[in-house]
Amino acid sequence: MTPMTRSDHLFGPLFMQKSQEALWSSEAFLAHFKAYEIALANAAARVGLVTQEQAARAVEDIADFVPDLVGIEEGVKRDGLPVPAFVGQLKAHAREASRPAIHVGGTSQDLIDTAVSLILGQANVMFVSQLSEVTAALQTLEGDWGDQPLMGRTRMQAALPILVRDRMETWRLPLVEGQGCLDELRKRVEILQFGGAVGDRAAVAPFGEAMAAAMAEELGLHNPDRSWHSMRAPLADYAHWLSLVTASLAKMGQDLALMAQQGIEEVQFSGGGSSSAMPHKQNPVLAETLVALARYNAAQLPLMHGALVHEQERSGAAWTVEWMTLPAMVSTCTTALHHARVLLSQVERLGR
Amino acid sequence: MTPMTRSDHLFGPLFMQKSQEALWSSEAFLAHFKAYEIALANAAARVGLVTQEQAARAVEDIADFVPDLVGIEEGVKRDGLPVPAFVGQLKAHAREASRPAIHVGGTSQDLIDTAVSLILGQANVMFVSQLSEVTAALQTLEGDWGDQPLMGRTRMQAALPILVRDRMETWRLPLVEGQGCLDELRKRVEILQFGGAVGDRAAVAPFGEAMAAAMAEELGLHNPDRSWHSMRAPLADYAHWLSLVTASLAKMGQDLALMAQQGIEEVQFSGGGSSSAMPHKQNPVLAETLVALARYNAAQLPLMHGALVHEQERSGAAWTVEWMTLPAMVSTCTTALHHARVLLSQVERLGR
Amino acid sequence: MTPMTRSDHLFGPLFMQKSQEALWSSEAFLAHFKAYEIALANAAARVGLVTQEQAARAVEDIADFVPDLVGIEEGVKRDGLPVPAFVGQLKAHAREASRPAIHVGGTSQDLIDTAVSLILGQANVMFVSQLSEVTAALQTLEGDWGDQPLMGRTRMQAALPILVRDRMETWRLPLVEGQGCLDELRKRVEILQFGGAVGDRAAVAPFGEAMAAAMAEELGLHNPDRSWHSMRAPLADYAHWLSLVTASLAKMGQDLALMAQQGIEEVQFSGGGSSSAMPHKQNPVLAETLVALARYNAAQLPLMHGALVHEQERSGAAWTVEWMTLPAMVSTCTTALHHARVLLSQVERLGR
Amino acid sequence: MTPMTRSDHLFGPLFMQKSQEALWSSEAFLAHFKAYEIALANAAARVGLVTQEQAARAVEDIADFVPDLVGIEEGVKRDGLPVPAFVGQLKAHAREASRPAIHVGGTSQDLIDTAVSLILGQANVMFVSQLSEVTAALQTLEGDWGDQPLMGRTRMQAALPILVRDRMETWRLPLVEGQGCLDELRKRVEILQFGGAVGDRAAVAPFGEAMAAAMAEELGLHNPDRSWHSMRAPLADYAHWLSLVTASLAKMGQDLALMAQQGIEEVQFSGGGSSSAMPHKQNPVLAETLVALARYNAAQLPLMHGALVHEQERSGAAWTVEWMTLPAMVSTCTTALHHARVLLSQVERLGR
Repeated sequence: MTPMTRSDHLFGPLFMQKSQEALWSSEAFLAHFKAYEIALANAAARVGLVTQEQAARAVEDIADFVPDLVGIEEGVKRDGLPVPAFVGQLKAHAREASRPAIHVGGTSQDLIDTAVSLILGQANVMFVSQLSEVTAALQTLEGDWGDQPLMGRTRMQAALPILVRDRMETWRLPLVEGQGCLDELRKRVEILQFGGAVGDRAAVAPFGEAMAAAMAEELGLHNPDRSWHSMRAPLADYAHWLSLVTASLAKMGQDLALMAQQGIEEVQFSGGGSSSAMPHKQNPVLAETLVALARYNAAQLPLMHGALVHEQERSGAAWTVEWMTLPAMVSTCTTALHHARVLLSQVERLGR
Repeated sequence: MTPMTRSDHLFGPLFMQKSQEALWSSEAFLAHFKAYEIALANAAARVGLVTQEQAARAVEDIADFVPDLVGIEEGVKRDGLPVPAFVGQLKAHAREASRPAIHVGGTSQDLIDTAVSLILGQANVMFVSQLSEVTAALQTLEGDWGDQPLMGRTRMQAALPILVRDRMETWRLPLVEGQGCLDELRKRVEILQFGGAVGDRAAVAPFGEAMAAAMAEELGLHNPDRSWHSMRAPLADYAHWLSLVTASLAKMGQDLALMAQQGIEEVQFSGGGSSSAMPHKQNPVLAETLVALARYNAAQLPLMHGALVHEQERSGAAWTVEWMTLPAMVSTCTTALHHARVLLSQVERLGR
Repeated sequence: MTPMTRSDHLFGPLFMQKSQEALWSSEAFLAHFKAYEIALANAAARVGLVTQEQAARAVEDIADFVPDLVGIEEGVKRDGLPVPAFVGQLKAHAREASRPAIHVGGTSQDLIDTAVSLILGQANVMFVSQLSEVTAALQTLEGDWGDQPLMGRTRMQAALPILVRDRMETWRLPLVEGQGCLDELRKRVEILQFGGAVGDRAAVAPFGEAMAAAMAEELGLHNPDRSWHSMRAPLADYAHWLSLVTASLAKMGQDLALMAQQGIEEVQFSGGGSSSAMPHKQNPVLAETLVALARYNAAQLPLMHGALVHEQERSGAAWTVEWMTLPAMVSTCTTALHHARVLLSQVERLGR
Repeated sequence: MTPMTRSDHLFGPLFMQKSQEALWSSEAFLAHFKAYEIALANAAARVGLVTQEQAARAVEDIADFVPDLVGIEEGVKRDGLPVPAFVGQLKAHAREASRPAIHVGGTSQDLIDTAVSLILGQANVMFVSQLSEVTAALQTLEGDWGDQPLMGRTRMQAALPILVRDRMETWRLPLVEGQGCLDELRKRVEILQFGGAVGDRAAVAPFGEAMAAAMAEELGLHNPDRSWHSMRAPLADYAHWLSLVTASLAKMGQDLALMAQQGIEEVQFSGGGSSSAMPHKQNPVLAETLVALARYNAAQLPLMHGALVHEQERSGAAWTVEWMTLPAMVSTCTTALHHARVLLSQVERLGR
């Protein structure tokens, strides 16, 4: 997909990780589309909608199909999404004998939504690892500095003394909670989409459920009871989680930027950005960037909630908004976790 | 609190329920504050910080204390929140012998956050009942009309025939899911706040945990491990849920408004608004209002996520934003459920 | 209208001014509705659609009409807006001879939109005066303290010395600019709405333009070329201005909260809020509240821009969203100006 | 910069124009940085801060400087912005004799903000031309179909007959207004930034004004009175305009999608997207995409207004948020204008 998933040299390192480019690339989507079509052909054979031989040939044809990206791009301009051109090219590429086993009862939304589920699965593996690194770094720092005194501050005013540990727990505990939520969330968002033209699986009746079960297993996804073409709560839940994690990191970033002020000096960093005008200055750049990333992700939430309001069986408008929003939110969250990890590695002292 | 919790005659019925006014009124907050102070005095006695006699007298004094609202309002202008004036008045009212047992180790945030938790508990009882009514109404209508044919529409274009049931499930299932989520969420948001000045319960050490347990039990709230002064994820989760439910109802409202169009006529209503210029017209007013309410609630989400970023031990800015936002979101969600119930009762036919 | 336009004792002083209650009250709207109907009757007589005598009687009947608020509230529940019940009651109240001169070619939107224009006119008078007070207070403080040295800070780090004046200009100049913009904006938003049922003034053709000119003059409003039922850019412009002003004040509030930190001490206040747990503490409550108010107003902007997308000749959903949003934004901006004025009066020293 | 400014094959055509990639590329920024440094050296010589010879040599060295992109990317990770590394490389590249004339009194923000101003100037040229094409296309269609009858619809219900022209004016007039606003806005946003380390031009005193005038002229930009490091209202105004234009196009898109419904058929298109499951279907893809693009741009407004609240002399957080937001908004608006133009060219009939 698009926003925030490609990097440039001058500003990219602030907003995104290069790993995101591959995750959301055209090539990745096309690979997921092919995996879907293969699982679909196999499932159609399993329930007897096509023969085993037709399916086997179709799988071969899908596997060695190399889509023409330029042609697909033309199709997107015409159709509003890449699947009709993809399926058209695939059928043209396939042998006549395998065509009946291709795209049986599938629709564009099945392929795209499932591809997103597969991408989110990969992102989640990354999040598990990143969260674990950041919470471990926090725990190490708590071990080193947690017993140091710190002035507790409320409404930006010195209040009463606390320990470094007290403030650090408000950074770490929400992330630990976020880890637990992600475990549950993965079952909700790493799911198959299979509904057909209008979401009722009518074209493959009465085999819809059996096919869905087979496809989910082959693709390594969870199998929801029915299609979720116009029921998008899991994606809104996921966006909520992405923003929660980013905001938790921003609370830490905001605190660290305040703690680094001259006159406060509750933290000492080893790195920090330099300035073109004032080479003596050490700027807590990553701390501030965490705040910016959280504002960005929070601002996208109304879009994901607005996208819950699908007109009838499918809204092009609502669905398109997801594409503009979700990849950028994933990318922003993973970037925040990356920056947090680096920032914590630069901490040389906490407390005062 | 304030926005959206008071009604007027001309526009109020669209946006709010009168029941909300009492829920969030000054009187309600003051009653919760008093309940908090009573529980606090009892807990302090239980752990031996004050004598049983001091606590018993304090409880009497708190119970018969009638706050001076005008004086508190002046205090709010000065202090930014009502608790210092409330506690000041309470101590002035209390007998000298009971004063040591009043506000022991408490702080403004403990009282206000706990009052909000108690209010959310009442709101949740209402939500349980409203959700149950709306889903029951949907089920009844599905029983009556679910087998009728309906043209499935994607991207606002006629696609393939489905059943009324297929579309209605996309209205009902998210609400059923919302019911399940609420059960879990109640444990997260109906919680005691007890942290003291800077959240570490230092003023009552080492009795913080014991006092918290006693107070939570007395107030009928759950007891989190520690204070959550600057860890607000539960409230963000709650706001997410409020917006999810409102959005689910908006999907139904949007569909019904589209279904009611001349030339489509997939629904027949018994009521509907009239027009000052065109008395013949029947407007699906409630259906449209559901869409408006969902947009409103979705738009507030960035505020609640922004409020996760507390500076240090307490941010006046972040906390104030919650007060401007959360009551309005609760009110908007309950109004949407009310409108949905009325709208469904007006359905005379579904399908075509 | 509703949100944020009514106050309570406990939190109201933070978010709203009591003057706003009267401005947006049911009574105010009904008075504006009556003024509209009088202007409409007069205009209809002027172009000859009704006789002078009919109009004169109608004006008498409108003037002494006392609406039944409870009846209107019932109408709102049914019709989604108060005008059909209002007009129904008015016609029932009027003498038979005057009825032909009542609501000639008018529609609900004409009355409500014009009432809002009249209210915004009153709000603008207030804004002109408030902006003038705040900029004057800033100029006085600049006169007193502008030449004092101050540490310039970038990315929250001490950079190079500046003068107090340098920072204060970034508070004052945007407000001065806001004053200039308001002059222009008043011509755009203090405007008549007159379009009839579907916005084309067909019911009064060919007299639409002549009637509009007469009505605008009588009501003291500007007269746009045509009805703006579904072209709402002026209201979005106004919302933008409200948020700009509130944000400019928040920049000042954020700076002052940072300047008031122990260890920085670039400002000294005479007042400041007290704490229930720490009586020694002086909190820059109003400075923080300015930040909260700006976040609130900024968050409402997508709602006002979403409300630009009216379906066809009138969208109930889009229009309803305006009602939920605009009054609260006006109230929030005027409250921010009020708080800013008080906060500046508490400044006892600037610079260090 | 980054989000939305690079395209991919599968979804890119929906959200962005390839022309945007060049506009916001690393190469474009570096070219603008070089232009800035050249103008700065010339201005420093003009006021006598450096010799004409030093400046002339510096200009030569800047002109033939080829930045090392990988090195700059490393610098961004360290400094939070590309300018320190850029200036460091430039100084290392320059001859010793020219170094005193390089980056005289400049700071990162001067270069980046001015580069954005130059890019917006290019975007504005494009917007002028696109707006002119879309309004011309609307006028042509109004000429062809404006007198056709159309059912006026309010609250999605048939109301009274109007003409096609009546509805089309609500599409065209806001765009015409947008053209007028852009003329004014260009003077506000195509402006030089020159403030130095903390915005007061102290390093080049007393020549700040004279240098700014010279630099603005050389760069083809307007010259504001002073630096606007922490006064960002022009950018918020610009974002407002971008969202207004996008929303105006969305109103047209939403109307056209509703008009294209079976049973309504108030428009006939020649193109329209096909479906992978239902080859017979013609989807009004571009009409829906216009709605999605407007939602996206509206949602970003709080970010741009939040970015008005710079802490002190420069906020890394606020500024970074601009970089994440503004390029995407420009790209989204230009894409909406492009889609609108194509969509209008596909209209074969309007009215019924």
